[in-house]
Amino acid sequence: MALQAGKGLLLKADPIAAAFREEVKLGLSKTSRRPRLVGILATSSAPSKFYAEFTRKQCEDLGVEFILKKTGAADTGDLGEGEGVEEAIIEANEDANIDGIMVYYPIFGVQQDHYLQQVVSPYKDVEGLHFKFHYNLYHNIRFIEPQSLLTSTVPSAASAGVVESEEPPPGTVKSIIPCTPLAIVKCLEHVGVYNKILPYGDRAYGRTITVINRSEVVGRPLAALLANDGARVFSVDIDSIQEYTKRPQGGADTSQRRYHPRHVVHPSNASLQECLAISDVVVSAVPTASYKVKTAWLKDGCVCVNVAADKNFESDVRDKASMYIPAVGKVTILMLLRNLLRLQQYKAVN
Amino acid sequence: MALQAGKGLLLKADPIAAAFREEVKLGLSKTSRRPRLVGILATSSAPSKFYAEFTRKQCEDLGVEFILKKTGAADTGDLGEGEGVEEAIIEANEDANIDGIMVYYPIFGVQQDHYLQQVVSPYKDVEGLHFKFHYNLYHNIRFIEPQSLLTSTVPSAASAGVVESEEPPPGTVKSIIPCTPLAIVKCLEHVGVYNKILPYGDRAYGRTITVINRSEVVGRPLAALLANDGARVFSVDIDSIQEYTKRPQGGADTSQRRYHPRHVVHPSNASLQECLAISDVVVSAVPTASYKVKTAWLKDGCVCVNVAADKNFESDVRDKASMYIPAVGKVTILMLLRNLLRLQQYKAVN
Repeated sequence: MALQAGKGLLLKADPIAAAFREEVKLGLSKTSRRPRLVGILATSSAPSKFYAEFTRKQCEDLGVEFILKKTGAADTGDLGEGEGVEEAIIEANEDANIDGIMVYYPIFGVQQDHYLQQVVSPYKDVEGLHFKFHYNLYHNIRFIEPQSLLTSTVPSAASAGVVESEEPPPGTVKSIIPCTPLAIVKCLEHVGVYNKILPYGDRAYGRTITVINRSEVVGRPLAALLANDGARVFSVDIDSIQEYTKRPQGGADTSQRRYHPRHVVHPSNASLQECLAISDVVVSAVPTASYKVKTAWLKDGCVCVNVAADKNFESDVRDKASMYIPAVGKVTILMLLRNLLRLQQYKAVN
Repeated sequence: MALQAGKGLLLKADPIAAAFREEVKLGLSKTSRRPRLVGILATSSAPSKFYAEFTRKQCEDLGVEFILKKTGAADTGDLGEGEGVEEAIIEANEDANIDGIMVYYPIFGVQQDHYLQQVVSPYKDVEGLHFKFHYNLYHNIRFIEPQSLLTSTVPSAASAGVVESEEPPPGTVKSIIPCTPLAIVKCLEHVGVYNKILPYGDRAYGRTITVINRSEVVGRPLAALLANDGARVFSVDIDSIQEYTKRPQGGADTSQRRYHPRHVVHPSNASLQECLAISDVVVSAVPTASYKVKTAWLKDGCVCVNVAADKNFESDVRDKASMYIPAVGKVTILMLLRNLLRLQQYKAVN
């Protein structure tokens, strides 16, 4: 933690990850069988290959069995990019000795990749990318019956948003949350953006957060998670800005402190500059090396989190930010392993 | 059918649709209750509004009850584009009096729209956009147990591609096929691209077909359907060309006439010009008004099918094409109504 005079704090993910390492280790010590994770690498992409090796190292350090399955252009043969990936997923779905499946995306592009994400059995979906988990997240359905993972239909919307405690009611378990958005929430909890004095389920109340990117993998689920936890969120995409909030907008009577059971999305007329000017937290996940959030537009003392592979913040970001988290990958992998342990338990229940 | 000297045939969809109108009418006369279809319109898009009115008219003509549910920017209030669409889907899922749901896309863009397509109950998915139906299509699984629609897991890949008859084996029903790709197949059957003398499941054998567009809604499922039916298909997208085929490639021994139970995808080094030069059929579905397939590149006597809202073929296409089908929408809507009747039956089975 290099703190220069007049500069905000540069916060690496390691100390944030540390607590979860201990949690995962403890969880592993209690399992009757070491969980087995399969990573499926189907492209020649260097970042995917790097991430696969990173997964292996993290698994080995913690005692999770990791098997890297190479296919397509990642394999030694002369297969094309992505060839065989669907077959590899189906094989892992049907193999009772496999507890979790992760696939190194992108492979074919967002549409076909989204299709592949539905082919992974929800019981083995450690990344939390199956639409059932997204549905639960968007609807603020935090607890589910484990056998509901077997059905193609979604839980009734009537069960959405009823959050009274962090502990699942009897007969239910926690839904799986997509790793990357969850890792970002955990980082924000760590740095105090979430206030533990507030009731569970509303601990980001009072915070204004800008999330730049509205993909189904990172930006939209993150904005929904934060708004379901009480924050006022601006979701910024290339062609629009939306506001996600549980609370009544504008002049509505807030004296009762009542709010919707889950976030509601409204179109916003604010510009990015106007959003940033009032944001306590800025999360950016734009997959474009040249994209930079202007330091000049940040609110003094805000918290900035970069999620993109290339840095989305200018090098002087800490002239304005009180804290800057340049990467969250080390927390993401622990969320994935935590999901692995949970899914292993959920399967055992059935 | 205006046949000018030296020009190919201009074939409107009406005569192709006619046979299916009779089939749907007959099906309707046998139902104990008139099926009820909900159309969900959530944007201010003029083509979507037009298509909704078209659906209504077709339903009324045939005796299907159609309810248009407007929300978001389509509603009279001041909601944003797409607002309320997910809630409208969930409500229709849970309403036992609704037999089918169609949603007028695009709404939010491909990623979020793909999410919405999974929220529609498979039992009411008359458009066939749920990933379970796509999975069956890609794996050439033509017959399913109706109750399998209730599960989140996919059928074993081992059951793929076993096609011996058009009739579903006892205890099974036909899987639902996405309307637009199916309508195109029906058009190609009508004009003799499919050869009924060949065995069922291989009737496009011997045909070379170029499909321009590889979206998950039209191009990829269409290429897979045609290849599963025996055709050699070039799937052309903005950044790559792939070959879909059930048969061994290149110098492999074909004397046994053996083939894969379903299509296999290979990268192709051919250019679009090279593909078109050998294609008996060209289907184009590029959603860009300026995109045109060059008539000069077409094989003399080929069949051309335009699926895009804007015409993807040059005005002189019939100088080379023996037949040109400028639009398939009238067949698509009948495929949708056929799916509605089938799903009503499948529900009754459970």
